[in-house]
Amino acid sequence: MKSGSIIVSTKRTMELIDITHQVSAELKNSGVAGGICTLFNPHTTAGLTINEGADPDVRTDIIEGFRQIVPLNYPFRHREGNSPAHIMASMMGSSLTIAINGGAFQLGTWQKIFFCEFDGPRTRNVHFHFLEG
Amino acid sequence: MKSGSIIVSTKRTMELIDITHQVSAELKNSGVAGGICTLFNPHTTAGLTINEGADPDVRTDIIEGFRQIVPLNYPFRHREGNSPAHIMASMMGSSLTIAINGGAFQLGTWQKIFFCEFDGPRTRNVHFHFLEG
Amino acid sequence: MKSGSIIVSTKRTMELIDITHQVSAELKNSGVAGGICTLFNPHTTAGLTINEGADPDVRTDIIEGFRQIVPLNYPFRHREGNSPAHIMASMMGSSLTIAINGGAFQLGTWQKIFFCEFDGPRTRNVHFHFLEG
Repeated sequence: MKSGSIIVSTKRTMELIDITHQVSAELKNSGVAGGICTLFNPHTTAGLTINEGADPDVRTDIIEGFRQIVPLNYPFRHREGNSPAHIMASMMGSSLTIAINGGAFQLGTWQKIFFCEFDGPRTRNVHFHFLEG
Repeated sequence: MKSGSIIVSTKRTMELIDITHQVSAELKNSGVAGGICTLFNPHTTAGLTINEGADPDVRTDIIEGFRQIVPLNYPFRHREGNSPAHIMASMMGSSLTIAINGGAFQLGTWQKIFFCEFDGPRTRNVHFHFLEG
Repeated sequence: MKSGSIIVSTKRTMELIDITHQVSAELKNSGVAGGICTLFNPHTTAGLTINEGADPDVRTDIIEGFRQIVPLNYPFRHREGNSPAHIMASMMGSSLTIAINGGAFQLGTWQKIFFCEFDGPRTRNVHFHFLEG
C-alpha cells in the first residue's frame, strides 16, 4: 500500500517513541523506490519529530526540555487541563516530509523518526503516504 | 485549480484562525481525489499549525503559551520591534503537508488547520498546492 | 538533477545561514517548472526554517530567542552535553516543503530559506528533492 496507518501504543504521559522500523517496513511493502514520504500525526496532543536515536537519553532530554520550556502550571482556559500538551504538539509539528531514495528513507546517520506523546498513555496512529517521482 | 492562494484577514495582534473550511473548498474545486496537499505561509511573522478546533479555548491557550515561552521584552536587535513574532513564526513553521484521501484531507477527529497571526492585524495569504498520486 | 544535496559550512556554534541562492541554483539546474520542493536536514543538532532575510538582525534575534527559551544549563542526561542543540533541532524542524511555480520557489517577499546550526562549527549538508506535478 502506498498509503495507510501504523498504530503506536504509548506507555507514559510524555515520551518519544522510535517508529523508524515500523514506517520503514511499510515503505518496503509499498515497493516505492524513489519519491517523498509524508508522515502525519492525526492527534492534537502529540507530534512527530526526527532526532538522534543512538543514545536513549536524547529523547528523554527532549521531553524534559519541552517540560522546562512550556509553563505546565499556567492557568490556561481549556477545561481538560492538557493545554501544555496542545502547545507542545504545535511546537513539534504534526507532519514530516522525508525523501525516498533507493527504496529507503534518506535519513542522516544518527536520525530516527519519533512519535511524540504529550498526553498519554494512549493508542495512537500515524498516517503514511508515499508519493513516487 | 490545483494550486493558488486563499486570503486570511486577521483582527488581532496574535490569534489562531481556522482556515480548514477555506482550504477544503479549494480542494473540492480542484477535483483532486488522492495525493498530498502542501500549505505554505509566505509571511515572516506568521505560521501554520494543526491543532484542536472543537474548544476555542485551545487556540487562545496556544497563543498565551507562546507569549509565555518567547521573551516579549528582551532587548532584541531588529529595529522593527517584532522579533518575538519572527521567533514564533520559526517555532510554529511555515508549511504543512497533509494527505488527501477520497477527496478530503486526512485530518484527525479533532484537528483543524489554523493560520497563526503573530504580528497583526493584517491581510495575509496562504498558498495551497495539491499533488496527485 | 531532481534530487541531491548541497553543502553548508557553518562558522559559529549557533547561527542561521541563508541557503536560498544555493537551492535556487539547484532548482534552475533541474529544469523543474512546477511542483513541490522538499528540503531535508540530515543532522540531529541542526534544522531548517524560513524567515526574514532582509535585516540580518532577524536571524541573530532568532538564535538569541532560542537561547533564551531553551534551558542551556539544565542538567540534561545526554553525556555529549549538547542536548539544548537537539531540543532546538526538534523545535525548528528538519524538513521544509515549498511550492514551485514558474521554475521558482513560491516564497514571500521577505522570505529566505535558512540552515540553522545549533552545534557548530561543522560541515553540514541539506538534501533537496523536486517533485513535478
